[in-house]
Amino acid sequence: MGKLGIGDIDVQETKRRVIIEAVKPEIDGGRFPIKRTPGEKVVVEGDIFADGHDVLSCVVLFRKEDESKWTEIPMKHLGNDRWRGQFEVRELGRYLYTLQAWVNPFKSWRSGLEKKLKADHDISMDLLMGAEVIEATSQRASKADAKRLIEWASVLRSKEDSSKKLRIAVSEDLATLVEKYPSLEFATTYSKELVVVVDREKARFSSWYEVFPRSCTSEPGRSGTLKDCETRLPYIAAMGFDVLYLPPIHPIGRTHRKGKNNAPAAGSGDSGSPWAIGAQEGGHKAIHPELGTIEDFGRLVAKTQEHGLEVAMDLAFQCTPDHPYVKEHPEWFYWRPDGTVRYAENPPKKYEDIYPLNFETEQWQELWKELKSVVDFWINQDVHIFRVDNPHTKPFCFWEWLIPEVKKDHPEVIFLSEAFTRPKVMYRLAKLGFTQSYTYFAWRNTKWELTQYFTELTQTEVREFFRPNLWPNTPDILTEYLQMGGRPAFMARLVLAATLGANYGIYGPAFELYENQPREFGSEEYLNSEKYEIKQWDIKRNENLRDFIARVNRIRKENPALQGDWSLRFHATDNDQLICYSKHGEDLSNIIVVVVNLDPHHTHVGWIELPLSDLGIDPQRPYQVHDLLSDARYLWQGPRNYVELNPHIVPAHIFQVRRRVRTERDFDYFM
Amino acid sequence: MGKLGIGDIDVQETKRRVIIEAVKPEIDGGRFPIKRTPGEKVVVEGDIFADGHDVLSCVVLFRKEDESKWTEIPMKHLGNDRWRGQFEVRELGRYLYTLQAWVNPFKSWRSGLEKKLKADHDISMDLLMGAEVIEATSQRASKADAKRLIEWASVLRSKEDSSKKLRIAVSEDLATLVEKYPSLEFATTYSKELVVVVDREKARFSSWYEVFPRSCTSEPGRSGTLKDCETRLPYIAAMGFDVLYLPPIHPIGRTHRKGKNNAPAAGSGDSGSPWAIGAQEGGHKAIHPELGTIEDFGRLVAKTQEHGLEVAMDLAFQCTPDHPYVKEHPEWFYWRPDGTVRYAENPPKKYEDIYPLNFETEQWQELWKELKSVVDFWINQDVHIFRVDNPHTKPFCFWEWLIPEVKKDHPEVIFLSEAFTRPKVMYRLAKLGFTQSYTYFAWRNTKWELTQYFTELTQTEVREFFRPNLWPNTPDILTEYLQMGGRPAFMARLVLAATLGANYGIYGPAFELYENQPREFGSEEYLNSEKYEIKQWDIKRNENLRDFIARVNRIRKENPALQGDWSLRFHATDNDQLICYSKHGEDLSNIIVVVVNLDPHHTHVGWIELPLSDLGIDPQRPYQVHDLLSDARYLWQGPRNYVELNPHIVPAHIFQVRRRVRTERDFDYFM
Repeated sequence: MGKLGIGDIDVQETKRRVIIEAVKPEIDGGRFPIKRTPGEKVVVEGDIFADGHDVLSCVVLFRKEDESKWTEIPMKHLGNDRWRGQFEVRELGRYLYTLQAWVNPFKSWRSGLEKKLKADHDISMDLLMGAEVIEATSQRASKADAKRLIEWASVLRSKEDSSKKLRIAVSEDLATLVEKYPSLEFATTYSKELVVVVDREKARFSSWYEVFPRSCTSEPGRSGTLKDCETRLPYIAAMGFDVLYLPPIHPIGRTHRKGKNNAPAAGSGDSGSPWAIGAQEGGHKAIHPELGTIEDFGRLVAKTQEHGLEVAMDLAFQCTPDHPYVKEHPEWFYWRPDGTVRYAENPPKKYEDIYPLNFETEQWQELWKELKSVVDFWINQDVHIFRVDNPHTKPFCFWEWLIPEVKKDHPEVIFLSEAFTRPKVMYRLAKLGFTQSYTYFAWRNTKWELTQYFTELTQTEVREFFRPNLWPNTPDILTEYLQMGGRPAFMARLVLAATLGANYGIYGPAFELYENQPREFGSEEYLNSEKYEIKQWDIKRNENLRDFIARVNRIRKENPALQGDWSLRFHATDNDQLICYSKHGEDLSNIIVVVVNLDPHHTHVGWIELPLSDLGIDPQRPYQVHDLLSDARYLWQGPRNYVELNPHIVPAHIFQVRRRVRTERDFDYFM
Repeated sequence: MGKLGIGDIDVQETKRRVIIEAVKPEIDGGRFPIKRTPGEKVVVEGDIFADGHDVLSCVVLFRKEDESKWTEIPMKHLGNDRWRGQFEVRELGRYLYTLQAWVNPFKSWRSGLEKKLKADHDISMDLLMGAEVIEATSQRASKADAKRLIEWASVLRSKEDSSKKLRIAVSEDLATLVEKYPSLEFATTYSKELVVVVDREKARFSSWYEVFPRSCTSEPGRSGTLKDCETRLPYIAAMGFDVLYLPPIHPIGRTHRKGKNNAPAAGSGDSGSPWAIGAQEGGHKAIHPELGTIEDFGRLVAKTQEHGLEVAMDLAFQCTPDHPYVKEHPEWFYWRPDGTVRYAENPPKKYEDIYPLNFETEQWQELWKELKSVVDFWINQDVHIFRVDNPHTKPFCFWEWLIPEVKKDHPEVIFLSEAFTRPKVMYRLAKLGFTQSYTYFAWRNTKWELTQYFTELTQTEVREFFRPNLWPNTPDILTEYLQMGGRPAFMARLVLAATLGANYGIYGPAFELYENQPREFGSEEYLNSEKYEIKQWDIKRNENLRDFIARVNRIRKENPALQGDWSLRFHATDNDQLICYSKHGEDLSNIIVVVVNLDPHHTHVGWIELPLSDLGIDPQRPYQVHDLLSDARYLWQGPRNYVELNPHIVPAHIFQVRRRVRTERDFDYFM
């Protein structure tokens, strides 16, 4: 403003005295939306103040993006000029919210009046000034209300005895009526309309199981089919998963096909990697002939739903040299000086079986539309969840266009970002629209690492836009911890994934069979990785964690505490191999305390310390902790209690906390 | 973007792959400038990244606002996609800065090449691709450079032996020449141009002395004059101050004039409060006849400069009922229903001698211009520092207009905000343009309080826009600590103010004479406050802290460490009555360690702990600490050392740290 003459200042602005700043939640100055699911709250805060001593009124305004009418929610003053209001989102899609605040002349007047009454000052002038405020209000009021207001004002101006005037001046009736007609002419509306994207509940709470359909057979030498995959459904459903994630099911290229254990050249019987998409038989909209037909796929989708699961497809936007796009749209690829198409490389690694798409091609519009048509194609096949391969190697602006474009017509669609890259890139992708994101969980093993990382994910602004999905293993990731720790390590990592994250997943049957042989020492690749060959998994063998997994997933379904991440809090233990944390439902009616022994080799004992008052537990009375894994019950009292965990039995407790409740008849029970 | 058709996407945007976010410093999304003084640095950081694995180039751009050419400073990668660059501001006024970053095809190519060389892969294709990058660069190059580039490219394309080609490909010459011509077509420029306001050095480092000219006399019953004030200058200058702040020197109203000790009615001889501005003799541009004439004022200003000080005027934008504005511009005031002008009140307090101005009057433009003309008037009298009374009771937008408007022609002007109000309001005023700000220092007494508050002021974003000015006392504030603690308390608070704050001030002679009688128990007002009567101060009496103050101010002048606030760090002590902190110059060549005994009654002893490596001190060798207050020298070693402070002698150490330096002849001395 300083650069303008005084004549350039908007006179309205000079009267807009209220400042609104430091608004939360607000991602990158409002550039990106926050995320919620139906029934969740948006708690909006802001620093709101004006010059001088006047009393303010502050509200949150919100609406669905496609509605025009704002709903107004009063905000409360928290102290130190911080105000808070909240609203609940109910429907899928996009909501907008903003703030509005104004100097309230009536409340300012009444506050001064009350102070003067207390100090026993003369208030005759104040009554007249009150009459002015009331008369001004009457001009905005309905006819009937205006009449009442003018009557009251005229009493305040009259020669009536002052006790009558005073009764009116301080009456609730007057306040209620005046507040019905606020003077918004010089109200400050926050400069931004902020966005909430509301996804369906599965965006917040989901249990993923990844399986290669071609391995869903016990006949050596034959590729499993989508029909074989159907027969695997009861086994998977019994473990309690609700998302069935299939690696790409498209035709696999032959040129430069990889052999077993990622050998540079395939042998004659080698099946190649499912992520090497595209062959003579088709590309991203086709199904590998060995897996079956589109009709088979439709039946698998339907059967999956009957078992309480939902199919998630892989979106890997890359092509083999045999992909039809290469011939039909050579302009969608990068060309090298020798007239060949550039394959993918991240020196010194070469991926000669993969051609990356050139998203910056002159024909980018055609390419982008085609890629969107791939998503639409599978949505039409009743697929509404996509796991996106390597999104960080495609331009950010592509995702920022694609995801909202898809969700415009299909707000139910979930996109999981498989970006194992630098933190800021992962966060950016989440901001741009990805519904869920892979995390560094697989490599966070110690108490300190887990505490730091999950505090960042669940207690900072990150939680507004980044929904973690925790995978203890994937076809690409067999961690050293799992390699070395065997069965106890798999159990510990399962409990951690399933309780630290409301969204989690495993790559099976490798996980439940605790497959832990690396290709070589120091590698995170599996020996004889399923990525490059068809596997037969002996899912019927005794050494199988299926029952343990089923129990953990049932605990997740039965305890709302585990269906969200924001309530996560870590608690002190006196043994660094024991990690302890809790989660609870919105009202403390459901409290889960988890203790995990992080050492897969040795029994550990220690004392854990719970913040009783935060959990609503009376320190003077015993409370019961019910281990939902072992079904054992312990009676505890006070914050410090003893635990002992033998990893060779079960390396974790998942306690449900039952506080003592006194009934009317003075009879205690645990709820 | 999601709401638009693909045709609405800017094709340029799809190629602008670099993201710039989380830029610092940036106040409220760039809404407000940061502050510096000449010679200070602006360290700019941002999260900068792109999709994929390409190598980026990032620069900071800056310029003076009135210049058109940007200066480019390369940024360094700090890790985790965080980049940093810095520039120095040199001249008063406004600078702009922003960031620019782009995918660097040459560096990306060369990085891949080097990785392949290490892995001993074939690079023949890479040499051809390098030739393409170099040829593209040549099209942006000068004729001579283009020729060289094309020659190099043609070698890379030729049948020459590969060692010659390789030598060119990895040569520094090639890199230097290519980097001269970056491809900025798809560079990302940060969306905001951020502002630095550069004030003169006194904005950062100043020592204020507040004195009532009417009390600069030892003759009872006579008002001191501006000439009397001149005679006080040698006394004030000898104490080492550089700003002489005068409470208002304008004619004082007679209507509802306050009597001694703020009595509701003045007696016949009462002088009234200098802040009750305006009488028949004039208003904000006039001088109280009892103080002298405008010529007297001009001479005082000149003499003050001769003594190495500068006059600061009080800007109190309010009027008594006798102010000429009331008659000439009744429309600038608030009118009550009974046809009288509204006086100031903050119920239950009433200020019947003060009429607030109505900044929202219909004639606001005339009012605002008149108020600016007051500032201009005193600037014309060679006044360039203003202490602004109660700015928080005037609209924010007024200050946001006034201050830059004044500084446009007078960038040297300093405005000190006297806003003892809520924190967010104080910060807002600083953001709007105030050069320095009063703080809560007067009420921060314990180690915890001081540590918390000054960590907030000096180690958070606040320091970018809020320059604290620390006052242990003012005519309105005689703290309980000073009332109870007497002389040792005054000494301790002086050392704290003068070393915690590069800007500080005292209200004298009340301070150096450790005047500590409150009007009544529980009040922070002085008994027989100088605000309401003329005082004679016995500045010649023996009990006077003038020498101590002079020593502290000399220490400040001689030690650059104390001339800025950002290096402040608090250090552990094992006694809560002992506070310890350090400051240092930019390069650790000047290190000051301060220890203060906060208990004005008892001697305290304890161990302090210094972070030796942060201070560049070798833990294996002794170092000397030289107490600049007592001139004592101590030889310390290691981080923990003993201190003992008797408040009845001196309640503080101000140590200059002298590290041992080994000379060429292996002879140690302390520097």
